[in-house]
Amino acid sequence: MSRGLLLVVSGPSGAGKGTICKEILAKRPDLQLSVSATTRKPREGEVDGKSYFFLQEETFRNMIEQGEFIEWASFCQNYYGTPKKAVEEQLKAGHDVILEIEVQGAMQVRSKFPEAVFIFVLPPSIEELKNRIIGRGTEAMHVIEERMERAKKEFEQIDKYNYILLNDTVEAATERLSAIIDAEKLRIERNEETIKQFVNNK
Amino acid sequence: MSRGLLLVVSGPSGAGKGTICKEILAKRPDLQLSVSATTRKPREGEVDGKSYFFLQEETFRNMIEQGEFIEWASFCQNYYGTPKKAVEEQLKAGHDVILEIEVQGAMQVRSKFPEAVFIFVLPPSIEELKNRIIGRGTEAMHVIEERMERAKKEFEQIDKYNYILLNDTVEAATERLSAIIDAEKLRIERNEETIKQFVNNK
Repeated sequence: MSRGLLLVVSGPSGAGKGTICKEILAKRPDLQLSVSATTRKPREGEVDGKSYFFLQEETFRNMIEQGEFIEWASFCQNYYGTPKKAVEEQLKAGHDVILEIEVQGAMQVRSKFPEAVFIFVLPPSIEELKNRIIGRGTEAMHVIEERMERAKKEFEQIDKYNYILLNDTVEAATERLSAIIDAEKLRIERNEETIKQFVNNK
Repeated sequence: MSRGLLLVVSGPSGAGKGTICKEILAKRPDLQLSVSATTRKPREGEVDGKSYFFLQEETFRNMIEQGEFIEWASFCQNYYGTPKKAVEEQLKAGHDVILEIEVQGAMQVRSKFPEAVFIFVLPPSIEELKNRIIGRGTEAMHVIEERMERAKKEFEQIDKYNYILLNDTVEAATERLSAIIDAEKLRIERNEETIKQFVNNK
């Protein structure tokens, strides 16, 4: 069985990466979401072990020290990270895995998994990004300002990604993401086995 | 207007690249086929200026000398080539252009248009490839053997391509090609303008 594809869906907070990931997972049962760990408090409706693994700060710090994360980041006074073990097992079993993570984390994944596919989700506009962060209604004003500053710095990392995914509408963005996944599976460097069979069969 | 995408659909004779190109052009009116020139005799149903520009050998040789081809090749005692002018005009006008060409020609395009997308069409199997070449019924036995030898050498060029496209069924292959086109349009390096607008808008 060939190794699964690691898809890193990233971009500024508020760009809509969560909604797009939810939509593509509903449409494509061949994909699996990697569940992240975080020390932030659950928002309404979020389920432990499904939305995130909600951890105490001490537990999280211990896991960092043990090297148990593919990537981790502190962001607005909370920790976020991707536990290594589960992702490796999913990939080995041939499953395609989506990581929905912040830009800071994505850059760490890039150094460890250069073969992963890096997708930068763009909001329709900077104004719309601000509206979305404000609209969420869960953050204080200084947090909103902090996030906007952060977003601007994150845009400067975009050339380290493979694809941009403009989130004009969730439906259109999801279809484009689906095309990216289909296309990536056809790239020469991911099909060495198929090619070998063909060449040897001569 | 941003420059169009140059798609090189290539692979051994008999792999089915012609059928796939015909199908995708019917499905996606945003694509344009580049019409090749050749010195081979028209097959039944082929129309001059549409299927190919059917040229005399002397005319073709003159065009080679004048540098009027993006690529050209001699194949089974005939010349094939892609006139440069028309393709450049289509790309400049923002149209996406498909070149359906032999492997030998594709390698020439690669050196001149490194930004082009190179797709290698694989037949379902080597046996099926032979059946298709025989089944066409237009070629003598020594030509069939020549083509099979050629195909085997062409497979060795596959790692210079970006994508493999297994032609298991025309419908499935066409859908995959469509995904490749959609995904390539989203690659970071093809979206410098969009990104610049975003970063400057901060």
